[in-house]
This record gives sequence, structure tokens and C-alpha cells, in this order.
Amino acid sequence: MPSLAKRLESVPASPIRKLVPYAQAAKKSGTKVYHLNIGDPDIKTPEEMIGVLKSWDKNPISYELSQGSTKFLEALTWYYHSLGFTFIETKNIQVTNGGSEAISMALFATCEPGDEVIVFEPFYANYNSYAALNGVKIHAITTTIESGFHLPSKKTIEKAINDKTKAILFCNPNNPTGTVYTKEEIEMLVDIATEHGLFLLSDEVYREYTYDGKTQVSLLSYMPKVPDQAIVLDSMSKRYSLCGARLGALVSLNPNLLAGVLRIAQGRLSSGFIDQAMASELVHVENQYIVNVQKEYELRRDALFRGLQSIPGVTVRKPEGAFYVIVGLPVGDSEAFCQWLLTDFRDQNETIMIAPAGGFYATVGKGKNEVRIAYVLNTKDLKRSIDLLRIALSLYNKTK
Amino acid sequence: MPSLAKRLESVPASPIRKLVPYAQAAKKSGTKVYHLNIGDPDIKTPEEMIGVLKSWDKNPISYELSQGSTKFLEALTWYYHSLGFTFIETKNIQVTNGGSEAISMALFATCEPGDEVIVFEPFYANYNSYAALNGVKIHAITTTIESGFHLPSKKTIEKAINDKTKAILFCNPNNPTGTVYTKEEIEMLVDIATEHGLFLLSDEVYREYTYDGKTQVSLLSYMPKVPDQAIVLDSMSKRYSLCGARLGALVSLNPNLLAGVLRIAQGRLSSGFIDQAMASELVHVENQYIVNVQKEYELRRDALFRGLQSIPGVTVRKPEGAFYVIVGLPVGDSEAFCQWLLTDFRDQNETIMIAPAGGFYATVGKGKNEVRIAYVLNTKDLKRSIDLLRIALSLYNKTK
Repeated sequence: MPSLAKRLESVPASPIRKLVPYAQAAKKSGTKVYHLNIGDPDIKTPEEMIGVLKSWDKNPISYELSQGSTKFLEALTWYYHSLGFTFIETKNIQVTNGGSEAISMALFATCEPGDEVIVFEPFYANYNSYAALNGVKIHAITTTIESGFHLPSKKTIEKAINDKTKAILFCNPNNPTGTVYTKEEIEMLVDIATEHGLFLLSDEVYREYTYDGKTQVSLLSYMPKVPDQAIVLDSMSKRYSLCGARLGALVSLNPNLLAGVLRIAQGRLSSGFIDQAMASELVHVENQYIVNVQKEYELRRDALFRGLQSIPGVTVRKPEGAFYVIVGLPVGDSEAFCQWLLTDFRDQNETIMIAPAGGFYATVGKGKNEVRIAYVLNTKDLKRSIDLLRIALSLYNKTK
Repeated sequence: MPSLAKRLESVPASPIRKLVPYAQAAKKSGTKVYHLNIGDPDIKTPEEMIGVLKSWDKNPISYELSQGSTKFLEALTWYYHSLGFTFIETKNIQVTNGGSEAISMALFATCEPGDEVIVFEPFYANYNSYAALNGVKIHAITTTIESGFHLPSKKTIEKAINDKTKAILFCNPNNPTGTVYTKEEIEMLVDIATEHGLFLLSDEVYREYTYDGKTQVSLLSYMPKVPDQAIVLDSMSKRYSLCGARLGALVSLNPNLLAGVLRIAQGRLSSGFIDQAMASELVHVENQYIVNVQKEYELRRDALFRGLQSIPGVTVRKPEGAFYVIVGLPVGDSEAFCQWLLTDFRDQNETIMIAPAGGFYATVGKGKNEVRIAYVLNTKDLKRSIDLLRIALSLYNKTK
């Protein structure tokens, strides 16, 4: 009998999703589970987009062009122009099946098997999956809660560069830390890429979600300066609450990269016909929609931060953007705790699901007492979730 | 400045799609282009499915479960049961982003980089893309138009097996040849897999489309016999004219394979929420829908075959299933001819787009005078397309 490939073992279970069977069992038994484990917002998708479904008049549901539907490519171009990046043309965009595929394509295109990509840990756990699928090694540089998960010095980053290093992959605003990198940090990365001949892969899925008056510094601002090296990875999921539409984009000025990525895209034929038709309506979504969503997340961030600060033994820094935060808990093994929340803990037949942070680190043993919390629920549910965490922690440390 | 990965060059342009820019230019200049290049049917998607869109009442558009939505998994299980494969449970199914992702996942899971998969050429061109993306080598065994593209002897296949061989990948009914393998052929493959410890990857996207009273012999019939080795790859695209819904499935009884494939799926989060809601309605689609579609394709097959036979110098065998045929043309270089059809040839300001067959072979130089024709247009358009091909060929061989 044949054996499965060993490389299959190198694809990790998602720390965000691996406890799902426990959550399903809890729900089956009638328990209400508040989901803080996954960035799947309860914010409404714009009605302009839902309207495309309700007035659907196309049949059959055909393939789209492999690069992306003409209408959606034009809508994305319009969006980048509205941000001031008027140098972006439709030819600079490859539509992808979610931000996921954009990241995977970028890793395949820039790295040979065995090459290295520098990533700052904790990082979005699924980077591990895309790295494993593409035979790429993640070279992690640790950032810490004490420095608000901001970048280390140029010298520290340069020390991690070797002849296998092909790219620096970063997420800004950051999932899972909530950190928003400063102009100086982004310029430092551009300098390092220029001096050492590296690609820059900037995951900007949470571009609009920055708080306390901060704004994101996009790698797009530097793209004309490093046109062959800068790659921006994007997604519709969080901006328009379209997680289930599986639409993202890879943006670049490098024609050879785009040609190669299009060949990959041809192999999987196209992104979704209906999803692209729906998302193309982004040109008709009032700017106020995004403003309101940003405000709502800021309120949730405030409620979550205040609540977490009041729990004894909890370590937390105020997140600057996105809708996640890495939280230190007074437990020895956060994965065991997260599982216990689903299997054993109940308060008024309710519990919470949160993601153990170990899977967001490449360094084994890091994040063992940390969790990632996504503040994607309304303030009322969020407050109840914090109360549940408080009660659970006090109980857990008594019973264990 | 950094170089792109050399492996990016190993991903071929799709022979089905690489001429698209010429087709777009032709259309822009007002020319009508009949698309026989791609299996994108004009058959209507069932109204039961379109109805899901029209009555859409869910907001936001959230992630689905990584394995697939509960409802869609249950619908797929119902479908396999309706075919008589009652041993299939929801746990045996991984929902994929089209058949494409199912094939790619199967290659990743069964082969280490550098391992070999036996495929019978001509084969579905995108197998080359998935092989390149997963670092797998396609070991092609040539089948010929003279033997109706049926499988060679057991001995010939066994000669291709070496210590790198991990699987046999086949498509039945076959894209691009239209061949439907006999019971004896499928049993021979099962025997070879058993004797040599290989995985069997059976692409059964065209299961329902067999003609002249033939029926498909599914690998599912042998799955209980080789539970760890048999993997069936499926898609909704052709069965329900849902090409643009990007939904497929990987079916297996091997629990370790399924667990690994689920980890890959977690990395890309989920398949489309709307697409899965829509496709779940397959349980409400009358069986008559598929019967009618099968009949319609058989009529088209007949019209195409008759028409092609009447063109001087054309070699063609009557396809037994699917909706493709490999056709030998009296031209030296079919790719140049296919391009010329789009750039130079016009009859009453109309032309056709067909796929040069070279890209469906792994052996360099094979298929150079062949094309793949997809009979996905209604009989009237198909007849006009054949006339256009007749006129074009007579003109091409005069002018070139």
C-alpha cells in the first residue's frame, strides 16, 4: 500500500479552526458559543452587493476570465485610484480566490523550494500553510508584546538574511497583533529590500482598520520606487464583510511576475462568477460604509481592551488596527485552556471560542500562554464574551 | 534586484486560454467569435439553483466550514448515494474550489517533490499546471487516435512505473479525447494500483456524459476494494453548468488523506458561501435535467462528428463521452492555425476559437497537427462553426 507524501504532515492544522469539532459538539448540545476565534465579522455586507444577488439575471453561471472579470478589475482599479495610487492599471492586478491565494501565488513566484521568507512572529497562522504548500521556509523574527509587536531594528532584520532569503512577508495592519507599522518601519523594509535584493510581500487586508487617528502606510506608496520588488496582497473579505466570497487580489508593477501569476491562474480557470459580479459593486458603496465600519471596530476595540485590562493576570496592549489582539493569559497551556472552554466550561450554558496563539509562531514553544482574540462581534456580545473569559479563567486556575 | 523563481517558468500557459487576447481583439473589432476552445457550456444552470440567488436573505457573506458547508456536504452525499455508492458519508468528502483544487490537493498529498504520476496523453492540459505547482513530474503514456485513445496494455503501463511513481491520474469520460474507459480498462488500473502500491486519481467531472447507451464505470465502484488508494475528483461545473461557481470535491475513504487535505483546506479557509448555498439545491434538481443535458450533448456530438467527417483532410473518431474531441487537421502547426483564425480569418465577420492540442501532451512535438474542440454550443452555432472551420482550412492551405 502506498504511503501519503510526508510533506502533507508539514501542513499544520489551523489554530483558528482546529478546535471546530469541539465547538460543533458544544453547539449540538445546546450551548451558545461566542466566536472570537476567527475574523468572520458580523458586520453587514453592503446592500449594493447583496442587491446583485436579488436581481440576478444571468444564466448559465460561466467561467470568468482567469485574470479576473473585466468589471471587477475595473472596480479594483477605481478603488486603488480612490486611495491616491493612480499609477495602478487593470494590468497590474490579478484577482485571486481570497487573500489566501494571493499569498500562495506570491510565495510560489518569488521562492524556489527550500528558499526562505522573513516573517515577523506572531504572524497570521495560515502563512505556515502557504509556506508548506510551496516548499518555502519561514524564517521568523520574534516581536514581543512589550514593544507592541513593532519591528525590530534594521540590524536585527539584516542578521536574518542569508543567501536563501528571497522575500520579507508582513501584514499591516497586523493580524494577529493589531499593530500598525509606522512610516519609518515601512521605509526601513523598503531600504532593506533595495539593499539586499529582496521581494516585499505586503498583506494589506485590513488597510482601512486603524484607530486613534492613525492611518496605514501602504507599500503601494513605495511601489513606483521598487516596482519589481513590491507585491501587495489584498482581500475583499474584511473590507466589505465578504469573507465567504473568496475574492482577493495580487497587485504588482512587475510584468514578468504578473505573467507568471496569470499562468497559475489559468490553471485554476477563474475566480467565482457571482462573487465577482457582486464585489464589482464596490464602486457604488458609499465611503460612509467603510467609515462606519472602522468606527464600529474602534468601539469594539475599546470595549475589549477595557474589559481585558480588568481581568487579573491578563497581559494586553491596545491594538492599533485590524480586529485582533494577542493576549497573554495566566494559564500554562493556552491550547488546553481553549479546548477546555469548549468541552468543559459553561456559564448559563454559554462559552467562548478563542484561538491558541502557538500556531501563530514559527518558534516552537512561543505563544504557549497567549491567545488571539478577534473582536468581530457587536459590543454587547463582546462584553458578555469578556465576562465569560473572566469567569472561565478564575475557575480554570482553581480546578487545574 | 531579485529574480523570480525559475519554477514560475515551469507553469505553462493554458492552451485553452492563452489565445484569449487575440479573441478579445477580434471581438473588440466587432467580429463574432464562436468559442469551441473551452468547456464552458451554454446549457442553462437549473432554475432551482438560480432561485437561491433571487431569494437571497443572508447577510453578511461569511466564511463556510473548511471541509464544506454542512448542507452542501449532505447534498453531495445524497448525490453519490443516488448513484448507488451508499458507503459514501459526508466525512469522505472534501469540498474544493472547482475540480482544479481537488486535483492539486491530491497531487500534493500523494507525491513528494520530484515524484512521478502516470497520465495518458493527450490529457487535460491543466494537469501540467497542478503538476508544476506541486513539483510533481508527469510521466506521460501516449494514446492514439487510431485506438480511439483507449488505454494501452497492462504491460505498457507497468513499463512506465519506477520507484518515483506514486499515482496514476486519469480522466473518465476523458477530456480532451472524449473516450469512455471500459470496465476492463478500469479494472486493469485497479489491478496495477494494487500490485504496485499506487494511488489512483480518477477525474470524473463528466460522469453523466456518455453516449450510444454507454455508461461510465466509476472508480467509486472499486473504492471499497482499494479504500486507501482510490481518490475520486469531481466538479459541479459541467454537471449543472456551474463553471463559474468554482465547486468541486475530492472523495476518498482514506482517513489520513482526508485529514491532510482538510488541513490544506483550512489554510485557504473555505469555498464560496453563495456558490455552496446555490449548488446544495442539486437535491431538488429533477433527474430529467441531467437526462436532457446528456441528450443535448449527444445531439451536438452527432452534429459535430458528421460535420467534421465531411471536411477533407480531417481525422476524427466518434467521441464516446464528455464534450470534447481531439481532431487531426491538415495543417503543419495547429497553434499557428488557431491564432490565424482569430487574427486573420473572417467569414461574414465571424470566426471560431479552438484549442491547439500540443498543450494537452507532455511529449514535446506531439499533437502539433491536432486541436481540441469543445462541443458546448447549440447545434445551430455548432454547425456554423464547422462551416467556418471548413472555409478556414481551405483558405489557410491556399494562403500558407
